[in-house]
Amino acid sequence: MTVNPLILPDLREMLSERDDAGLAQIANDLHPAMLAEITEGLEVEETWQLLDHADLHRQAEVFSYLPLERQVELVSGIGRERMSKLIEAMPHDSRAELVRRLSPEIVEELLPLVAKADREDIKKLLTYPEHSAGAVMTTDYATLPANMTVADAIAEVRHQAPNRETIYYLYVLDSDRKLIGSVSLRNLIVAKPASLVSDIMDHEVISVPIDADQDEAARQLAKYDFLAIPVVDHEGRLVGIVTHDDVMDVVVEEATEEAQRMASVVPFGEDYMALPIITVWRKRSVWLACLFIAELFTFSALAHFEDEFGKIIALSLFVPLCISTGGNSGSQAATLITRAMALGQIGPHDWLRVMRHELIMGVILGLTLGAIGFLRAAATPASVLAGADRWMLALVIAQAVAIICLWGTLVGSLLPMIFRRLGFDPGYASSPFVATFVDVTGIVIYFTIAKIYLL
Amino acid sequence: MTVNPLILPDLREMLSERDDAGLAQIANDLHPAMLAEITEGLEVEETWQLLDHADLHRQAEVFSYLPLERQVELVSGIGRERMSKLIEAMPHDSRAELVRRLSPEIVEELLPLVAKADREDIKKLLTYPEHSAGAVMTTDYATLPANMTVADAIAEVRHQAPNRETIYYLYVLDSDRKLIGSVSLRNLIVAKPASLVSDIMDHEVISVPIDADQDEAARQLAKYDFLAIPVVDHEGRLVGIVTHDDVMDVVVEEATEEAQRMASVVPFGEDYMALPIITVWRKRSVWLACLFIAELFTFSALAHFEDEFGKIIALSLFVPLCISTGGNSGSQAATLITRAMALGQIGPHDWLRVMRHELIMGVILGLTLGAIGFLRAAATPASVLAGADRWMLALVIAQAVAIICLWGTLVGSLLPMIFRRLGFDPGYASSPFVATFVDVTGIVIYFTIAKIYLL
Repeated sequence: MTVNPLILPDLREMLSERDDAGLAQIANDLHPAMLAEITEGLEVEETWQLLDHADLHRQAEVFSYLPLERQVELVSGIGRERMSKLIEAMPHDSRAELVRRLSPEIVEELLPLVAKADREDIKKLLTYPEHSAGAVMTTDYATLPANMTVADAIAEVRHQAPNRETIYYLYVLDSDRKLIGSVSLRNLIVAKPASLVSDIMDHEVISVPIDADQDEAARQLAKYDFLAIPVVDHEGRLVGIVTHDDVMDVVVEEATEEAQRMASVVPFGEDYMALPIITVWRKRSVWLACLFIAELFTFSALAHFEDEFGKIIALSLFVPLCISTGGNSGSQAATLITRAMALGQIGPHDWLRVMRHELIMGVILGLTLGAIGFLRAAATPASVLAGADRWMLALVIAQAVAIICLWGTLVGSLLPMIFRRLGFDPGYASSPFVATFVDVTGIVIYFTIAKIYLL
Repeated sequence: MTVNPLILPDLREMLSERDDAGLAQIANDLHPAMLAEITEGLEVEETWQLLDHADLHRQAEVFSYLPLERQVELVSGIGRERMSKLIEAMPHDSRAELVRRLSPEIVEELLPLVAKADREDIKKLLTYPEHSAGAVMTTDYATLPANMTVADAIAEVRHQAPNRETIYYLYVLDSDRKLIGSVSLRNLIVAKPASLVSDIMDHEVISVPIDADQDEAARQLAKYDFLAIPVVDHEGRLVGIVTHDDVMDVVVEEATEEAQRMASVVPFGEDYMALPIITVWRKRSVWLACLFIAELFTFSALAHFEDEFGKIIALSLFVPLCISTGGNSGSQAATLITRAMALGQIGPHDWLRVMRHELIMGVILGLTLGAIGFLRAAATPASVLAGADRWMLALVIAQAVAIICLWGTLVGSLLPMIFRRLGFDPGYASSPFVATFVDVTGIVIYFTIAKIYLL
């Protein structure tokens, strides 16, 4: 359901005709996410002309659905006074993200104008490192005292609702702000009005520490099907919550980074088509150049076998085939293992089990490809053979393909596990890295086998 | 927070000692997701010994957190009568998934024992094709009549709560079951008790059609930060809802499939280490064999240039370097474009913009790699050169690398867009596919350039 192309022409007409009634209707009736999407087709001034028909609270809501770059663009043009009011009204996590992106000069002018409590909240969120639970959490969570009755608690929730990111989970703190329980609004609604919150709350609250990686928060939330997961400091005090919508963003972001690592790119945070050419060049060329330099060793490996090369020209014609076999089987194994590790299907102690599995797979995949290679090599035209034994050549190709396939599979499955053990992201032991390594070693395997049989 | 390794030994002791009090505590106090995780370390009989200490409702909850294969394993051993009670208590979407996996004989014996309403619900959900919104939705959503007061509506929600997947969104239907509005529990709680549901509900409900792809439901839910999104039939009647936790599963599943396609594997639905070797072999060997057969053309391309090959041996030593350049730059571009399409950053009409961007990137990346190639080729040892001109060779390598890099980048960025236009999943135009295509064409480019300068 994309309304964008339908509404935009009408909207432009309303804007040029200053049709206040129509603009007010659009600015107030549409879902803020949809409104945010529509404004992406408008100029900065047009966007403000439209948003000015909504109140501050709604403007702040629309803002939190806009891409960060767009938020910065929109906010940079307006007065600092107005910007400070908007920021006070935004969700706590979204506004911290926005302030993180504004230039230091703007922030310096802006923060003194923001109400003290909000200012301190922003400053605090900015201290947490990027990609930590602290950096993605929001501080506008709802709390309840343990000794309140359910009836009073519902009244309290009603009171807190307008300023809370979610009221579907309510957290119970002791006098030291330590997290001692949680209750869902669902359980609150169905409980007897006279019961105490302490009677119906869950005492075992699953939480993540503030310095945990955002992935960890995402994994826990997904595992328990939570709407939000609490974040606690080292003393167990509640400091924030990470909500399901932020986790969804984290999951999508991680998948993108994983794909980009597999494609040998230094991960881009955002829309790469919108970035400056020089940035994209830098991020893409770093890995391509590293791979290229590593691949230079294929030259050295081949030069080492130069004599063999000269003797039977047919041998050299099969080089790309043999090494690509290693690259393909290696990157296949690497991707499967990396993904299984990301999903938690393979733990750090499973390497023996993985090796056994991949050894069997490598052997049967190698036999499959070796058989095809045998048939093709046996059909080598006599002109290319130049006197070499057809069946011997076929045997060499079949064996080389089979062994290189097995080798690629083993390297591809071991490397991600070794990388993790060494503390690197296993995603870096990905397709192109494995493929390049197997290319070079594959040449050595190939010519060694050829030497045994043919030379 | 993983309790598993800590609890398991204690649990085994309790099971062997038949410590009913301890088992009852574990079975009733832990979060069902955690309980589900723990039982994965137990035998089938042990699991039932533990679960028997919880009531049917809780058993059903634990079940919905277990992997499907495990559910099938657990359920196959128990009597049909008992299985039918468990299935009646399970969430509607989880049980439909489970029944989908049971063998037809079990289903045939089982379904007549299930209560009629539940049986019909299961049968209906099974009719929707896999990966459609209909197949992932649940039918236990909560509804409200439009003309009810808020106070009565809250009482009604309290009444419906025990049998609903979520009560945080309430859907308003007309007499024809058409979806005419929705209200969040949050808004219901803060509204004046005497207002009518029709006064506070959202009239513009964002929904997805029943035959939409599950991705579409996931995208819409993520875009609007919803907890659930309603699914409607072709007459606009509400038939189910897709909830945030199912969407999370869909997003993770899609990311896995995308990674697997990039690694040239026919996607596995589940934990691939747990599948039979023969299945894994089939899924892995299909693509590897296809790529291998395609890669056979490198032999033909090289054989075509056999004469050139024989003349200057140094030329052939650079073949793997040149073609891997094309493969790496091609798969990099393909991944970036595929991912940007998946995130909606590139639409079907953007191909001209993409081409322009990738043309520039291809040129500057090519120049970067070409410069490195020039330096390396200029340092070729005299023994390998065998009389060929060192600087001419360096010029050939630099030009070949630059042009193949540009070619790889263009092919890698165009193929996913062409695939989408032809109605295929752009993910298939992925790294290995592009790399193999560029390998073969790269050989032709390389020797054509070599012929111009050296021969």
